[in-house]
Amino acid sequence: MTYCVALRLEAGLVMLADTRTNAGVDNVSRFRKFYSWEAPGERVLCLLAAGNLSLTQGVVTRLNQDIRRAGAGEDVETVLNAASMVRVAEIVGERMHELQGRYRDALIEHGAEAHATVLVAGQRAGGIHRLFMVYSAGNFIEATEDTPFFQIGEHKYGKPILDRVIRPATPLEAGVKAVLLSMDSTLRSNLSVGMPLDLAVIRAGELGFALKRRIEPDDPGFERLSRGWAEGLRQAFDALPGLDAG
Amino acid sequence: MTYCVALRLEAGLVMLADTRTNAGVDNVSRFRKFYSWEAPGERVLCLLAAGNLSLTQGVVTRLNQDIRRAGAGEDVETVLNAASMVRVAEIVGERMHELQGRYRDALIEHGAEAHATVLVAGQRAGGIHRLFMVYSAGNFIEATEDTPFFQIGEHKYGKPILDRVIRPATPLEAGVKAVLLSMDSTLRSNLSVGMPLDLAVIRAGELGFALKRRIEPDDPGFERLSRGWAEGLRQAFDALPGLDAG
Repeated sequence: MTYCVALRLEAGLVMLADTRTNAGVDNVSRFRKFYSWEAPGERVLCLLAAGNLSLTQGVVTRLNQDIRRAGAGEDVETVLNAASMVRVAEIVGERMHELQGRYRDALIEHGAEAHATVLVAGQRAGGIHRLFMVYSAGNFIEATEDTPFFQIGEHKYGKPILDRVIRPATPLEAGVKAVLLSMDSTLRSNLSVGMPLDLAVIRAGELGFALKRRIEPDDPGFERLSRGWAEGLRQAFDALPGLDAG
Repeated sequence: MTYCVALRLEAGLVMLADTRTNAGVDNVSRFRKFYSWEAPGERVLCLLAAGNLSLTQGVVTRLNQDIRRAGAGEDVETVLNAASMVRVAEIVGERMHELQGRYRDALIEHGAEAHATVLVAGQRAGGIHRLFMVYSAGNFIEATEDTPFFQIGEHKYGKPILDRVIRPATPLEAGVKAVLLSMDSTLRSNLSVGMPLDLAVIRAGELGFALKRRIEPDDPGFERLSRGWAEGLRQAFDALPGLDAG
């Protein structure tokens, strides 16, 4: 399985992905599920993937092939030259639709999972920062003020903290804490989600990454956050009056 | 859906169930999923149910029919006269197996859910307090020191707090707080789980209920707990240093 989460805050975008994949419990591997593209000063893009790895890797391969062809002078629309972020999400959806058309029937015939979901986040010069969730069918939805975050993969364990904390006006630093704690709860409760993590932050309007970092299992900052949260929760729990303490 | 949780602590048993059922999002009802039987001073039993309601209600109906027949003088083995708690769990499993045999094929043919899971908790005079999870096939497992709690239904949202807090030595009062907070997180994040709640506590060796109570949506104790937890979490979150504040 996988757990990826992305926030669309007024102050910018926060993305976090784990790196564990598994085909059964006896076939566990580490794969990057966070991808990014930058044309500094013009646009910055991230893609986070969950579901069938061959399909989501195939989507990214095709996006990169098109970028290389455009770089070689061909007249190809790519995620780096598309006219809008909505068009970027559409292109990702089109590639997903192609991959599903190629493999879906055979996958289902073989009893395999054909489901795949992708988060697309970024900003281009002249536009606002946006966050989309692209489904297996290639259709997509956009994060709004009412729902400023998207989760894909094993999303349930880490949803309560996001429901409680994340609002459009949440500062980026608090957003980073929240996604890390959401991941921490998921890591503790579900073996199919695992370290290391890929974390990225894009400040609104900066058209580049304010932070892009791999967090390894022994990362002292993440360890301190995880331990501090465990202690803080424990203290909050102990300080709570019982049901009938009046 | 449903969310039920039960703890098997050294100090006794704690059980909590919601009351929401739904067949699709446009067919939502309130049904008790917590059942109990008492022979004060001799034994006390609880059953919590998730999955197909017709199957779990059918199990309880059969258990009660047998108790009535035994009460009328017939020589019938029931959950109230069975020789051990393991035998109680076996009887529940046998009734489940019968119900599955009667309806499972037709349910699957009609595209309905035939899955049902039941938690059985209690104690009889001369035995220890025990907690079992009975599956659709009638087989069952028992809570142990390594895994002192069971959850059925929508279990993921409320698992992190239990993973963090529940140990065999956890006092009953803390256990009650933990199951209520586990339910609170689930209620906030999943519409298919709903108030009111049924809560019960059995102290080890008392062979009766220390607490058996319905918690309505406006229960002041639960509201205070829910609000206090939201505030405590918020304070713990705000007090945490960021990833790189070290």
